[in-house]
Amino acid sequence: MSREKSSKRPKESPAQRSVCPVACSLDVLGDRWTLLVVRDLMFGRSRFKDFSASPEGIPTNVLSERLERLVQHELAVRIPAADGTKRLAYQLTEKGEALRPVLEALRDWGLQWEPGTQALISGESAGL
Amino acid sequence: MSREKSSKRPKESPAQRSVCPVACSLDVLGDRWTLLVVRDLMFGRSRFKDFSASPEGIPTNVLSERLERLVQHELAVRIPAADGTKRLAYQLTEKGEALRPVLEALRDWGLQWEPGTQALISGESAGL
Repeated sequence: MSREKSSKRPKESPAQRSVCPVACSLDVLGDRWTLLVVRDLMFGRSRFKDFSASPEGIPTNVLSERLERLVQHELAVRIPAADGTKRLAYQLTEKGEALRPVLEALRDWGLQWEPGTQALISGESAGL
Repeated sequence: MSREKSSKRPKESPAQRSVCPVACSLDVLGDRWTLLVVRDLMFGRSRFKDFSASPEGIPTNVLSERLERLVQHELAVRIPAADGTKRLAYQLTEKGEALRPVLEALRDWGLQWEPGTQALISGESAGL
């Protein structure tokens, strides 16, 4: 997808540390939690309570902030929950889905080098 | 490389949040700076002053802490500097080199989705 396709993409952030694409990616993703919420979205989880129930036990205030950040950076969008209530759910955008190779690389590295790791059962369908 | 090959690999960390390999990888790598130091090591930089001179301007106290962490997690080792002084330099281990697919995936995502990014000149030889 070309960059021009979306007119809503945020402009270059003043917090951007350099033009290095790795650095710019880490400006958005570089913390212990953001990519775990992206992982959960790839697992098909969509609701606040679903993310909150993940085994890492993300604190709710951190989860709120990360979901807001995902939306702000257009990695995810808010959608109506499937249960017909007025609650909101979250869904990855194309930009968010494009993080799959990053998560796969982190998964592969973790499986090879970090003792005691194993792919989560719910990750099998998502390939994580 | 099998896990058994190195007897010095640290045991499962008490700070490990789950057995998910993505989470365990982020326990080590999940911040804005660690992977940039790994990037610099892949660029062939080896000395404190080299990392410090990178365009992102890593604060020296953060750099000291991250280098220590890389050594502690066996992503890098300290070696004598090539200039014959008693100064130290750093070099990636096999475990650190194995992060190349992670950095490549972050680079590719950044180039496609983050405005204003471009591969660093010094990264051409390293493929980043």
